Amino acid sequence: MSELRLNLVTREWVIIATERAKRPVDFLNTVVKPPLPEHISACPFCPGNEQRTPPEKFRLPEDGQWRVRVVENKYPALSGYELKRSIEGIRRKVSGAGIHEVMIESPLHNMNTALMDLADLREVLGIYRDRFISAHSDPVIEHVIIFKNHGEGAGTSLEHTHSQLIATPVVPVQFRERVHAAQQYFDSTGECMMCSILNQERAEGVRVITDTDHFLTFIPYAALSPFHTWIFPKRHSASFSNITDDEIRDLAYHLKTFLSKCYFGLENPDYNYVIKSSRPLDAQNEYCHWYLSVVPRMTKAAGFELGSGMFINTSIPEKSAEFIRSAPTE
Amino acid sequence: MSELRLNLVTREWVIIATERAKRPVDFLNTVVKPPLPEHISACPFCPGNEQRTPPEKFRLPEDGQWRVRVVENKYPALSGYELKRSIEGIRRKVSGAGIHEVMIESPLHNMNTALMDLADLREVLGIYRDRFISAHSDPVIEHVIIFKNHGEGAGTSLEHTHSQLIATPVVPVQFRERVHAAQQYFDSTGECMMCSILNQERAEGVRVITDTDHFLTFIPYAALSPFHTWIFPKRHSASFSNITDDEIRDLAYHLKTFLSKCYFGLENPDYNYVIKSSRPLDAQNEYCHWYLSVVPRMTKAAGFELGSGMFINTSIPEKSAEFIRSAPTE
Repeated sequence: MSELRLNLVTREWVIIATERAKRPVDFLNTVVKPPLPEHISACPFCPGNEQRTPPEKFRLPEDGQWRVRVVENKYPALSGYELKRSIEGIRRKVSGAGIHEVMIESPLHNMNTALMDLADLREVLGIYRDRFISAHSDPVIEHVIIFKNHGEGAGTSLEHTHSQLIATPVVPVQFRERVHAAQQYFDSTGECMMCSILNQERAEGVRVITDTDHFLTFIPYAALSPFHTWIFPKRHSASFSNITDDEIRDLAYHLKTFLSKCYFGLENPDYNYVIKSSRPLDAQNEYCHWYLSVVPRMTKAAGFELGSGMFINTSIPEKSAEFIRSAPTE
Repeated sequence: MSELRLNLVTREWVIIATERAKRPVDFLNTVVKPPLPEHISACPFCPGNEQRTPPEKFRLPEDGQWRVRVVENKYPALSGYELKRSIEGIRRKVSGAGIHEVMIESPLHNMNTALMDLADLREVLGIYRDRFISAHSDPVIEHVIIFKNHGEGAGTSLEHTHSQLIATPVVPVQFRERVHAAQQYFDSTGECMMCSILNQERAEGVRVITDTDHFLTFIPYAALSPFHTWIFPKRHSASFSNITDDEIRDLAYHLKTFLSKCYFGLENPDYNYVIKSSRPLDAQNEYCHWYLSVVPRMTKAAGFELGSGMFINTSIPEKSAEFIRSAPTE
């Protein structure tokens, strides 16, 4: 019989559909992606085509061949800092102020985060932190999302490895509601909900993938979809902005470990990852706790998910964790 | 410059991305689906294979060749009425009680709702109403979703035309939050929010696709994605359960009109539709208002949407409505 599990963070029930549950190996990507070349002359992110992107906002190193470049998105969803609000009858409208950046994470067209040198991934995560802080520097910006879309099934249109930052002039309702849930938990228990989840996951152990000094990688008790995974910092902190260099080093290890286990264990599936964080201004609050969420795209959301906001997960979180734990990293 | 528009129903901002906006014709499905045969001997939903589905719960007509069959899903996400709750520390778990039905809408393997006889579609919608009411008859059931997944991109695994009903033993948080938004609107204005939206859309007219006695089909002001469309009943009613036969006749006309315009105007795109409704018990409440939502699957949700709950719509709702209004229905 199936069971429903409550996701404390979203407050949503997830149907763990045991009747239709698949074995972890059933999720192996069967469409093997052809190997990519190191350089494609038509790719706007490949070296030599720098003039095809909007002007650079940042690069490392400053001179010579770059390892990482940050440019504005060529077709930005949001841009500029001029905010106009309009309230007319039932209509609410805000001008599209904000930031939409692309972080080109390697000069190699065929680089994959799962296969990246740890030192390079550390550098990328450090740039995430800097761009996150920088994006929040204008008071128009209310919220910043850093995310990666890997593969066509995850919504990417350019295969050259990159991630994106979108800074919005409004607060997403989803974020507000998570904060409310966290506040209520804090008010009733005196503890941070995420810290409680962390302790519980470590105590149970069955969904843990990687456990080190600074981070815990685990499949949530109420995972929304097969191999949906959270990487939680152990130190209570509401904002990604104050991650330390030591923690970045450890986060790079967790992210690469999980993605390489997916790469080798599940045949390079498409995935998204996203950093869920409060802004720097709220870094000290006691009830929010930033984290990184990875969603391998194993199944498609359909009418039920659209209509209810609930998810049907056709895998058992404990079995998925067991599988990924023993998957090779190279 | 892009603009953000507030979706009153979800309370979420939608980015209408004018910088990256496409023309309506750019969304034309380029992968032309091969025509399907009328019958496939391997299809469990085709006549002659009735023994391959779980036992019938309903059929029309009762004898002879059926036009519509309702069966339990072979791999139900939820089943039975035995509800066990478990509360242990931070964990909340409920046994997977509920209903998961499949409505096989035609004996013809290649039938498409866009091309269906109106009389047949009326019959199907009448069965939706009956199954919706029937599903709510057990007190364990808290919420019922009726939906259709058309095409692989919309998450269907069987191409023979069918829709599904899932009855859950819990209330989806998404639904609760919509009710809260509707309550707050009612408390501050004395009006049903959806009735206000209806009046506003009719007054502005630019997003209206079809307007008849009982229903209004329109693209929402803050549509989440290209051609995302709502069909609103004009009569205030919180629950689909009390739709009249006259209204069903009109709803069939609206649904077929919109889907056939998509079929001929956008080359048969994949889509989901879903009925969003309160339960029969709450049918008389003043602030909820049931409706049908159609989401053609033109774009993929990616990391930004997963991470923020906000959507980036790469079409202009007014232009999409203009395009669909003038699209042929045959």
